[in-house]
Amino acid sequence: MTSFPTSIGTSDASTIRLLGQDLAADLMGHVGFGELAFWLVAQRRPTPSEVRVFEAVLVALADHGFTPTAIAARLTYLSAPESLQGALAAGLLGGGSRFLGVTEDCGRFLADTLAAVDGPLPTDDAGFDDLARDAVSVARSARRLVPGLGHPVHKTEDPRTPVLIRIAEEEKLRGPHLRLFEAIGRVHPEVLGRTLPLNGAGVCGAALADLGLPVDLLRGFALLARAAGLLGHLAEERRTPIGMDVYLTVDRNATYTTPDPS
Amino acid sequence: MTSFPTSIGTSDASTIRLLGQDLAADLMGHVGFGELAFWLVAQRRPTPSEVRVFEAVLVALADHGFTPTAIAARLTYLSAPESLQGALAAGLLGGGSRFLGVTEDCGRFLADTLAAVDGPLPTDDAGFDDLARDAVSVARSARRLVPGLGHPVHKTEDPRTPVLIRIAEEEKLRGPHLRLFEAIGRVHPEVLGRTLPLNGAGVCGAALADLGLPVDLLRGFALLARAAGLLGHLAEERRTPIGMDVYLTVDRNATYTTPDPS
Amino acid sequence: MTSFPTSIGTSDASTIRLLGQDLAADLMGHVGFGELAFWLVAQRRPTPSEVRVFEAVLVALADHGFTPTAIAARLTYLSAPESLQGALAAGLLGGGSRFLGVTEDCGRFLADTLAAVDGPLPTDDAGFDDLARDAVSVARSARRLVPGLGHPVHKTEDPRTPVLIRIAEEEKLRGPHLRLFEAIGRVHPEVLGRTLPLNGAGVCGAALADLGLPVDLLRGFALLARAAGLLGHLAEERRTPIGMDVYLTVDRNATYTTPDPS
Amino acid sequence: MTSFPTSIGTSDASTIRLLGQDLAADLMGHVGFGELAFWLVAQRRPTPSEVRVFEAVLVALADHGFTPTAIAARLTYLSAPESLQGALAAGLLGGGSRFLGVTEDCGRFLADTLAAVDGPLPTDDAGFDDLARDAVSVARSARRLVPGLGHPVHKTEDPRTPVLIRIAEEEKLRGPHLRLFEAIGRVHPEVLGRTLPLNGAGVCGAALADLGLPVDLLRGFALLARAAGLLGHLAEERRTPIGMDVYLTVDRNATYTTPDPS
Repeated sequence: MTSFPTSIGTSDASTIRLLGQDLAADLMGHVGFGELAFWLVAQRRPTPSEVRVFEAVLVALADHGFTPTAIAARLTYLSAPESLQGALAAGLLGGGSRFLGVTEDCGRFLADTLAAVDGPLPTDDAGFDDLARDAVSVARSARRLVPGLGHPVHKTEDPRTPVLIRIAEEEKLRGPHLRLFEAIGRVHPEVLGRTLPLNGAGVCGAALADLGLPVDLLRGFALLARAAGLLGHLAEERRTPIGMDVYLTVDRNATYTTPDPS
Repeated sequence: MTSFPTSIGTSDASTIRLLGQDLAADLMGHVGFGELAFWLVAQRRPTPSEVRVFEAVLVALADHGFTPTAIAARLTYLSAPESLQGALAAGLLGGGSRFLGVTEDCGRFLADTLAAVDGPLPTDDAGFDDLARDAVSVARSARRLVPGLGHPVHKTEDPRTPVLIRIAEEEKLRGPHLRLFEAIGRVHPEVLGRTLPLNGAGVCGAALADLGLPVDLLRGFALLARAAGLLGHLAEERRTPIGMDVYLTVDRNATYTTPDPS
Repeated sequence: MTSFPTSIGTSDASTIRLLGQDLAADLMGHVGFGELAFWLVAQRRPTPSEVRVFEAVLVALADHGFTPTAIAARLTYLSAPESLQGALAAGLLGGGSRFLGVTEDCGRFLADTLAAVDGPLPTDDAGFDDLARDAVSVARSARRLVPGLGHPVHKTEDPRTPVLIRIAEEEKLRGPHLRLFEAIGRVHPEVLGRTLPLNGAGVCGAALADLGLPVDLLRGFALLARAAGLLGHLAEERRTPIGMDVYLTVDRNATYTTPDPS
Repeated sequence: MTSFPTSIGTSDASTIRLLGQDLAADLMGHVGFGELAFWLVAQRRPTPSEVRVFEAVLVALADHGFTPTAIAARLTYLSAPESLQGALAAGLLGGGSRFLGVTEDCGRFLADTLAAVDGPLPTDDAGFDDLARDAVSVARSARRLVPGLGHPVHKTEDPRTPVLIRIAEEEKLRGPHLRLFEAIGRVHPEVLGRTLPLNGAGVCGAALADLGLPVDLLRGFALLARAAGLLGHLAEERRTPIGMDVYLTVDRNATYTTPDPS
């Protein structure tokens, strides 16, 4: 018979074990929710410093007002108010390449750049600047965007970026991913010919990568953070709904055009 | 032109505001993730005591091993590994009436019972026992289950229940919903003729209701907690997959039966 | 070892069987898609007359322009264009009680009314009128809406209703559910004191119930129909997108309000 | 004010228009469901020959027994039976790169190969063989798989492939995509050194591309087809459930392993 291995959780008649701990005796009341989320993915308990940086990332990513995902969740709640899980899921399904993907893309770009270094990593800013200059040049030659650069609203500086770097520094967790990201901020104008801000989604990816979290799953933390923001939107939709007005605004301003055969 | 009111978030070129706060200056590094989730839904900052009870609930609900929802998320990740958001959403879609709904159902049952009290609420256990006796009797007459009673695995005691009650007591947040729930635990054997444990999902609903959170959204907190557990499962599926074995176990043990017209 | 019975499909190295048929030899090229969908759910092959009524229902329900579900699907596609399945799923998740549920609710209301008849069903309009009068009166006394009555846009007549009844009549499939629904259309003014149209979603539920399809799954046919409509919207979103304009319309007309603690 | 153009649908008090037609008068009872789905995406009415090929594709892709997506849908229905739309959405979310993506990948591979041809397309098999030989060689050099080749169960021949080619031939719709796909079937052994079958998902992608449908949306037709199959599974789950047995089989055969920190 096939067996199904897991190191997450088990339970029997009197005990629930999670991550090798007794859930009721050792975790409830002793472990924060962000701390547990880190632990569940990394399979190790984070230090208090790691928790502070990690929760600062989740807080930074939780909400951005009326994003397409928040609007989609509210419209779904309007149509199917009996299924809160459906509205939340609809909102999370927008957590793809364009609106939530930057965190993961940036973490991966930094990790790939660092992994390609032959020999030891740089120890000073000049060394990270050289690395950044090469990485941005290569991306430019390949006509690829550098993830984490630029923002449609925060055109000069994204206020989250310096704050997260400072928190990581305070907690001695400003590692090579963040340092390379900062170096990209310094050197990209000379390569690209214009100055762009380091955005908040990107700095979050750099910080998560410095925490040792798997780069392939960074989008997952953005989704977890956004789940809290979406709950806030759904709670507000319940109190002061906008979904019907969104629908009517679109429907009443629809203009019919002749079909255009593909 | 229609306007769309919100008190969640806004941003301009230099500032991101969330819940009336400056996200970068006032929230990142200062507010925990669970604390923010509470704030987003309740539109008020919880006290440290409320945060402790709230996070204990989220920790209690985060995972239960190989639940149907965890298996569904892993199978979806197997089929579409490029879309982590799809696998997470698939897992959350199982957060309905049967497997995650008890928290909300129990909170609502308790809140409805308390709301129907004519005059002041009881102040001692005897008063809550009377209330519980009536509520269980009414449910029984209507052949409805009392939500929060019974568990398929923890047949005598769910280990989460006494721990959450103790934490709420320590934080002076053991209010009427929890007290009524405990009363149901004491009196139901005389009404139903058998003794069932107060389950963990139910006590979480009671605790959330005592925190003043809206009863219609309690399922949302169970979903947020489960999002963390599902990320843990998806991280594990990436390291040591079981999805293919689940699929093959079902497919190889399929037996073909003759169609049975409806 | 547990075995998993199914009468849907099996395959081996050289053959794929579906519903007891050879998929390649007997179904492909011989069976229409709507016909197969009926067969899959009902586990019996529909007659050509049943297929015509069934496909008329699917065509009637496929699209309604810029519904909340269509807008949600387009916004999700905007955010995560790499995951067409996510955008489609987000659109279907709005297929709940309010916007797609009428078909199922109406079918169930009619089926429950017919099931409660003591003795043989009526054979003439007068008999169905009596039945309808009672059912509408009971609903009114319980302050419940009669599903299938009224429409926000088609205030006098929903153009789908007489056409579907005619098609069912042509195919000799105008059974007791449709006849009771028509009777509700005749008698409700005298009970409710105002005249409402029989809507298209409702007549579809009546027709599906007359086809012998399980009432608990009628919503599923509305979802299948809507899946085609949503594909149309996503194809159009790819050619001439509106998602970004919807997002910007909402975001730019957002007004910030002070948090209102729950 | 922003306007939102669409050529799909509009309605007023007395008429519903879809694709420039009167829904009730011109479409219901006159147009099949598969025909309408084609029309919605392509924005032109397909010919009867095109409908026959298109519906043969949908029939071919509708179901494959206990796939991971069917199991995920059933587990979600077990957990949240009140939300049929959630179970259907969960099943469709597995329609990604691995289990449903071959149709789109194959269509795109063929379309890209044809688009890169300098001058007129081949008119005889020898010409398509040359084209196929080059395309397979290039894929091999880049260590990329050729989509549409090979099947885990149908190791010699997928029974759907010759049937769909025959149907397309009968309807005079065996165009360059199908002819190139057949050529790949002829020449790949000499390039790859082993003989693989042309699979059913691949031939469906080729046939859809020959129908002129947009290659970026081919996955959408696989999803539509699968929606019908999933409804069949959910109807069966309602009659003769297996979800609980799947869950228990996994949960009871779980083996706990020590956490392995990332």
